[in-house]
Amino acid sequence: MSAITAHGEKKLLLASGRAHPELAQQIAAELGTELLPIDAYDFANGEIYVRSAQSVRGTDVFVLQAHPAPLNHWLMEQLILIDSLKRASAKRITVVSPFYPYARQDKKGRGREPISARLVADMYKTAGANRLLSVDLHTAQIQGFFDGPVDHLMATPLLADYIRTKVNVEEITVVSPDTGRVRVAEQWADRLGGAPLAFVHKSRDLTMPNQAVSKQVVGQIEGRTCVLIDDMIDTGGTIAGAVKVLKDAGARDVIIAATHAVFSDPAAQRLAECGAREVVVTNTLPIPPEKRFPSLTVLSIAPLIANAIRQVFEDGSVTSLFDGQA
Amino acid sequence: MSAITAHGEKKLLLASGRAHPELAQQIAAELGTELLPIDAYDFANGEIYVRSAQSVRGTDVFVLQAHPAPLNHWLMEQLILIDSLKRASAKRITVVSPFYPYARQDKKGRGREPISARLVADMYKTAGANRLLSVDLHTAQIQGFFDGPVDHLMATPLLADYIRTKVNVEEITVVSPDTGRVRVAEQWADRLGGAPLAFVHKSRDLTMPNQAVSKQVVGQIEGRTCVLIDDMIDTGGTIAGAVKVLKDAGARDVIIAATHAVFSDPAAQRLAECGAREVVVTNTLPIPPEKRFPSLTVLSIAPLIANAIRQVFEDGSVTSLFDGQA
Amino acid sequence: MSAITAHGEKKLLLASGRAHPELAQQIAAELGTELLPIDAYDFANGEIYVRSAQSVRGTDVFVLQAHPAPLNHWLMEQLILIDSLKRASAKRITVVSPFYPYARQDKKGRGREPISARLVADMYKTAGANRLLSVDLHTAQIQGFFDGPVDHLMATPLLADYIRTKVNVEEITVVSPDTGRVRVAEQWADRLGGAPLAFVHKSRDLTMPNQAVSKQVVGQIEGRTCVLIDDMIDTGGTIAGAVKVLKDAGARDVIIAATHAVFSDPAAQRLAECGAREVVVTNTLPIPPEKRFPSLTVLSIAPLIANAIRQVFEDGSVTSLFDGQA
Amino acid sequence: MSAITAHGEKKLLLASGRAHPELAQQIAAELGTELLPIDAYDFANGEIYVRSAQSVRGTDVFVLQAHPAPLNHWLMEQLILIDSLKRASAKRITVVSPFYPYARQDKKGRGREPISARLVADMYKTAGANRLLSVDLHTAQIQGFFDGPVDHLMATPLLADYIRTKVNVEEITVVSPDTGRVRVAEQWADRLGGAPLAFVHKSRDLTMPNQAVSKQVVGQIEGRTCVLIDDMIDTGGTIAGAVKVLKDAGARDVIIAATHAVFSDPAAQRLAECGAREVVVTNTLPIPPEKRFPSLTVLSIAPLIANAIRQVFEDGSVTSLFDGQA
Amino acid sequence: MSAITAHGEKKLLLASGRAHPELAQQIAAELGTELLPIDAYDFANGEIYVRSAQSVRGTDVFVLQAHPAPLNHWLMEQLILIDSLKRASAKRITVVSPFYPYARQDKKGRGREPISARLVADMYKTAGANRLLSVDLHTAQIQGFFDGPVDHLMATPLLADYIRTKVNVEEITVVSPDTGRVRVAEQWADRLGGAPLAFVHKSRDLTMPNQAVSKQVVGQIEGRTCVLIDDMIDTGGTIAGAVKVLKDAGARDVIIAATHAVFSDPAAQRLAECGAREVVVTNTLPIPPEKRFPSLTVLSIAPLIANAIRQVFEDGSVTSLFDGQA
Amino acid sequence: MSAITAHGEKKLLLASGRAHPELAQQIAAELGTELLPIDAYDFANGEIYVRSAQSVRGTDVFVLQAHPAPLNHWLMEQLILIDSLKRASAKRITVVSPFYPYARQDKKGRGREPISARLVADMYKTAGANRLLSVDLHTAQIQGFFDGPVDHLMATPLLADYIRTKVNVEEITVVSPDTGRVRVAEQWADRLGGAPLAFVHKSRDLTMPNQAVSKQVVGQIEGRTCVLIDDMIDTGGTIAGAVKVLKDAGARDVIIAATHAVFSDPAAQRLAECGAREVVVTNTLPIPPEKRFPSLTVLSIAPLIANAIRQVFEDGSVTSLFDGQA
Repeated sequence: MSAITAHGEKKLLLASGRAHPELAQQIAAELGTELLPIDAYDFANGEIYVRSAQSVRGTDVFVLQAHPAPLNHWLMEQLILIDSLKRASAKRITVVSPFYPYARQDKKGRGREPISARLVADMYKTAGANRLLSVDLHTAQIQGFFDGPVDHLMATPLLADYIRTKVNVEEITVVSPDTGRVRVAEQWADRLGGAPLAFVHKSRDLTMPNQAVSKQVVGQIEGRTCVLIDDMIDTGGTIAGAVKVLKDAGARDVIIAATHAVFSDPAAQRLAECGAREVVVTNTLPIPPEKRFPSLTVLSIAPLIANAIRQVFEDGSVTSLFDGQA
Repeated sequence: MSAITAHGEKKLLLASGRAHPELAQQIAAELGTELLPIDAYDFANGEIYVRSAQSVRGTDVFVLQAHPAPLNHWLMEQLILIDSLKRASAKRITVVSPFYPYARQDKKGRGREPISARLVADMYKTAGANRLLSVDLHTAQIQGFFDGPVDHLMATPLLADYIRTKVNVEEITVVSPDTGRVRVAEQWADRLGGAPLAFVHKSRDLTMPNQAVSKQVVGQIEGRTCVLIDDMIDTGGTIAGAVKVLKDAGARDVIIAATHAVFSDPAAQRLAECGAREVVVTNTLPIPPEKRFPSLTVLSIAPLIANAIRQVFEDGSVTSLFDGQA
Repeated sequence: MSAITAHGEKKLLLASGRAHPELAQQIAAELGTELLPIDAYDFANGEIYVRSAQSVRGTDVFVLQAHPAPLNHWLMEQLILIDSLKRASAKRITVVSPFYPYARQDKKGRGREPISARLVADMYKTAGANRLLSVDLHTAQIQGFFDGPVDHLMATPLLADYIRTKVNVEEITVVSPDTGRVRVAEQWADRLGGAPLAFVHKSRDLTMPNQAVSKQVVGQIEGRTCVLIDDMIDTGGTIAGAVKVLKDAGARDVIIAATHAVFSDPAAQRLAECGAREVVVTNTLPIPPEKRFPSLTVLSIAPLIANAIRQVFEDGSVTSLFDGQA
Repeated sequence: MSAITAHGEKKLLLASGRAHPELAQQIAAELGTELLPIDAYDFANGEIYVRSAQSVRGTDVFVLQAHPAPLNHWLMEQLILIDSLKRASAKRITVVSPFYPYARQDKKGRGREPISARLVADMYKTAGANRLLSVDLHTAQIQGFFDGPVDHLMATPLLADYIRTKVNVEEITVVSPDTGRVRVAEQWADRLGGAPLAFVHKSRDLTMPNQAVSKQVVGQIEGRTCVLIDDMIDTGGTIAGAVKVLKDAGARDVIIAATHAVFSDPAAQRLAECGAREVVVTNTLPIPPEKRFPSLTVLSIAPLIANAIRQVFEDGSVTSLFDGQA
Repeated sequence: MSAITAHGEKKLLLASGRAHPELAQQIAAELGTELLPIDAYDFANGEIYVRSAQSVRGTDVFVLQAHPAPLNHWLMEQLILIDSLKRASAKRITVVSPFYPYARQDKKGRGREPISARLVADMYKTAGANRLLSVDLHTAQIQGFFDGPVDHLMATPLLADYIRTKVNVEEITVVSPDTGRVRVAEQWADRLGGAPLAFVHKSRDLTMPNQAVSKQVVGQIEGRTCVLIDDMIDTGGTIAGAVKVLKDAGARDVIIAATHAVFSDPAAQRLAECGAREVVVTNTLPIPPEKRFPSLTVLSIAPLIANAIRQVFEDGSVTSLFDGQA
Repeated sequence: MSAITAHGEKKLLLASGRAHPELAQQIAAELGTELLPIDAYDFANGEIYVRSAQSVRGTDVFVLQAHPAPLNHWLMEQLILIDSLKRASAKRITVVSPFYPYARQDKKGRGREPISARLVADMYKTAGANRLLSVDLHTAQIQGFFDGPVDHLMATPLLADYIRTKVNVEEITVVSPDTGRVRVAEQWADRLGGAPLAFVHKSRDLTMPNQAVSKQVVGQIEGRTCVLIDDMIDTGGTIAGAVKVLKDAGARDVIIAATHAVFSDPAAQRLAECGAREVVVTNTLPIPPEKRFPSLTVLSIAPLIANAIRQVFEDGSVTSLFDGQA
């Protein structure tokens, strides 16, 4: 018999781009490991160079990148890093993109629009990714854009459990800031013990005929503590506007909860001044000191991601982390 | 110079599976052509045989199939037909599936679920389809499941224009039967001149404390003519339940409008008896006589599809059929 | 060094569709394991839902499905099951289709026909299958339709060994029911110690000039025990007709042997009444009680499949199961 | 409107490798065109260089190559030529391989064999071929190895029509030289007005018990003119052996008919001396003068191929060339 | 006959990203057309939105983008634009990237490096590009990174013809600034009538033993007018250093010629002050006013690109633009 | 829990084509294993048959082939061998081609040329290769032609270390035989302690005006020991010519060093008679006795390749074999 035999062994490596070193360190710490040492820098014209300082042959690499502005730069860094790991003979490559780039461009809203979220999935595949791990995709259908396994983590339990410690759930009404996220609001409501729902949108107020169309609340929110939810807060215009409508309609209090703190200007100012009692987000994206404000609470997503990575590596169950809902 | 030269010419062919011959004939008539003659039959064990009786070399073929029960049978027939046309040297193949199969399985709602809608898109591609044309996809993101151009037609204008002839739009409230289609209801409302919105879901009624969770309407519908909308009606349970809730909550009248009349048993009976004034659907799926009832109105989708096919063939604009919204 | 290390381990899982639970149970029993628990049901319009009730991450899954009527339904179930397992991070997926669907449509017999057997291979690949295992493909070339390893098992030894226990091999002539399976008949003849060959086909009988073309036997069968072989019996028309021709030509006895008992109506009646001494088949397809008859013998294919699965899982040799002929 | 518009025009080009210039010239002449001028030569170590001397942008190129020994050399030349045409922006590339390379390795006859015929199909695709045209594939299933349209031409009508001019069809028995081509013999028999069939194979002669297994004819051939058919003649051993068996069994005369004259040594000598009245082949492969002998008749395949190319280019019907059997 | 027939027509569209509007306008003007009107803007977090304002169905679109800093941003814009055009049913998409992004990362110089130039080619393909057109690729092998036709234009004739008007070719020595571009220098030398060659690199000067390794000229340049060539000038360090070495070694004069003016800081200052008589570049990249200096000459690449686009569209010959060298 | 569990184990197999059995044996010996037993032979018309005599399921196979003339034959053998191993369920297949076929056709030097080196990479992939291992690729960019990991070994250290034992490095000038390999000469120079560089090319000699263009040396070589380097020696014309030029220009001595000894006729004679003191090559290609001559030194590449294979198999670092330069 002419074969040379060796014992199989699996090795997990955590690699990270440069967009959010703090999150990378937190996840590594949760896993009890260190980040893969990587040389990475930009050339003068913006081209990116990356190279692992250590052999990655045969390893199971998780390639973390956060996607704040300049988003395209960080996305390309992640793609080039994946390419380098593939060519260096990594055995399996899992993209870890807590905030999925271009998630909002997930369909042709009008003719001739791109579907950039699908393009991103295909580019990950082209670069060499085998798997994808993300948190609270803008729409769950994005899972179907990637031709391979997707682990879709949910921050709702994390955020909701925090809110439970601050408010009596009996007082809560869950509010969607527009018509597109009422289903998500319903999932929140379930998590908060069957709380009632409401949503904000533009329409005529039937109780005040002869008035022009304006932003209205559909649902009963008078005297309630409104938990205004969204998957991401970008410039904060819609969400701050919703707070005002809720207050005007008699809400007792408003708490804003969102997974992804994009916080493009002037989001921080708007949120600080909008009248919400508290704004709760996670750190899927870096939040620099100048964008933080007194009523902001940032929960760490690192334990959730680290847990999922461990389950993926050890062939455990990610689904079990979410009571079958992942 | 050693080339043989000929003038280029484009030829459009309309091919159809056997699931809905009436719709195929209507579309052919609208286009002013005849259907491609196809030999198609089932073997005793369910295997399907298809073969075009006429050369299709170099043609631009549109392969229509409707997908009523037994859906998998009709889907396979369409795939095999595509395969035969590809191998017979058709130049371009456009799938025309007015009711997209498995559209509801468009994400992993729970861990380990399939994403069958993506699988269907990939199978169309594998069989040889270059393009896809469908009507009112369950979620617009399904456009991104197909790796190629998708023409997404909307029946809302057709249905809404019909309803405008029956009801004073001032009296209308548009109602979503659950939390997942509030955005679609909003698009209806826009089409009906800014009508108010409501939706039905399970929750506690704040005005009646101490009561268990039950189906409630969120939004004001008392005295209104409710247009209860959905993309499809399958067994009709949800929609009939919603009619009851609306009636109980004081709605003056309810009109049901949906694009796809799946009408699995006992849908026809439920709809006939649910108390709705009228049920308006299109013929994207065949509705046999025994599933028709007095209050049912069936609008033909054929002119819309024929129009789109003509635009695609002539390199015109499908988008322009929908004011830029396709 | 920053890697987390774990021992590699391989896990075999046997998953099955709903078409032939008895065979699935037999194979599981042979392997000494249990079937993967799967939730599977049909929606009212025929759409299929499947979901593994247990984590499959990192496992080596064998996805068994039989393909009786309604064949397209069971094929789609298998494809959707494969999709769900791929997305749930199974490490390797082997299709186990004892009776390969659409095997008879393996070429363009006439222009513009599909090659559905290739389409099926491509769909398995598209859904996520890495490997394929089947029994007695209609033509061996189908192995080349799949872009990956194919384990092609043969039931001939099983069937032939059974027949050896019933007949003196010296008395046997192996008969092909048409011109297309003479090569297969030859393989049978080798297995039965170099028995003579014959085949049935339409032609003029040279010994009876002036007669029209009719079914004739080519080869000497007078006084012989004819073993009439085929890969499958569908409606049984050809095979029953061949029995008659053989009897008329002076055959002493006829035994029918075939791997796949498709048994579309009226196969059972025809076979029961055709005059054959015995009909020997395997259970690659389910045979319901109403299709069984006294002269029918059903041999279990389960030990053969279980053996092959074990060899595949343990990186043994499937070829060795067949003296180098697999 | 910002588009520049031009009239579409189609241009056919016929390109050829260096393996069989005579056939290339014949086909060009039939088409009424000239061959694309191509620079082609071998480097000292066997590497091949090819380059079209003329622009091929936007053209419909047919890339002819014959595949005599050294077959791998000519196959690589064809692949490299396809690559160069693809990169030079040819619009559509059709492989024209009258004798399909490696057609005999179309399945795993034993475990661990390659399926080289599928590999060849995939390499054509990889190099850039869109379509495939071949003559009398060893097995028709090879059509399914190529992922695209295949035009499968048949030389049977050409050969059979020639034989009709030489023999009274009433006297003919069609004979397959082994068990694998009885189906093909049957197609010949149909073409020759329902002639009877026979085949040669190793077995015991029932009429002469106690004799060892030897080559026997199955079927009645005494006093008949045997048309011994095959798709190809390689070294001629099997076919010459079959002639002897037929003569010994009382055949009046034997005519050999085959499409592909591979004629590896010592085929020419064997055929010349085997006792056949005539050997009829086509020129799908070059037959050098030293391999020609008095009883050899070579029919030109060029008109058939030229006709098919014209149909393909003009979007006509290749099927119609064969009464629906292509 | 059931086909609808129409005349084929080809339409050329020129689309452009936002990186270099001046070049886009020049090319459109050369072609005598207008740019496709496109809505394009950035979201606050850097995500890009693009949409054609006009139907592109069935057209032959050329998608121009220049790639100055921030290069990744402009690359993503081009990819998203391609995706949108593919999904809007453009018939053929040609990438026009005069300066190919990441061309310098065309191999693994060290283990574990990415090959970003291949990744870029694959991403163009993934997004939907059929063809690629570029100018003076860093290495010609990049043509082989794209799986499809590449039109590789050369600016050397343009630059060399300009220099001929300024210098007596008898006085010229062509100098490569390092060892990697001596072949390119040789092509320049041929274009300039067989001028002698030299190159600069680090080594010991044999004429001055005992000296450390330093930058040396290899080749005779004393009293010569050195044309110092390169494909691109990034920060200008190497090229300015080469000028100094040449001057020190006795060169009479130095003219710098390069295709791509990347001009990252402090290139403009270095070039202005390095002592070169003239710096000649093209406008494949935008050169803002603050990076221009008195000795800089910018030649327009627009006529060359427009010519090539016209040849591609009209199925002419791009090769003929370069005497067979493209 | 229903899984069957087994321990993972890795098995290395070394398979080889028939082109260079001596090298295969050397590598096997270095690895301490035996070659996989393979049945391989040619059919009369040049078609190749291969089959492993032993199971390869689940193994990590390295498929060695050398590529001397007839190169296409050996390339096809390697491809067919890969196909057979893929279909026999090998787990991972690494191509080992020490001399990469068609490496010189790595770009379109003129319009309409093929890029055969890319085609070869794609064919390896198509046949089933996962990885590629080669030595001294003609250009390093060929690494980017393969869509997967490439281990690029360098023979320079081996050759240079040998030369160091023969010559005082202070006396050496490294010479490139043309303008295209000056960069490689520089890498040699670095390895030899910073030796000076020179190259040979056609140009006017500035010191001898009025003379026609002829081969000249650029760089100082008078009285030096010239190490004339190249990646391969084919017919030896260029290299022998360069020796003459160097001698004429006053070189004291010339040593030729090249990795790949293609040695097409009349290379051996030319090299033997060209006046070089020694010709040093490796055995990446077989050198038959009749092509050996007194001044030829052949170093074995087997230890280097065996080392790399071991690193690849054991997930070690190939890069470390070359001080980070692989």
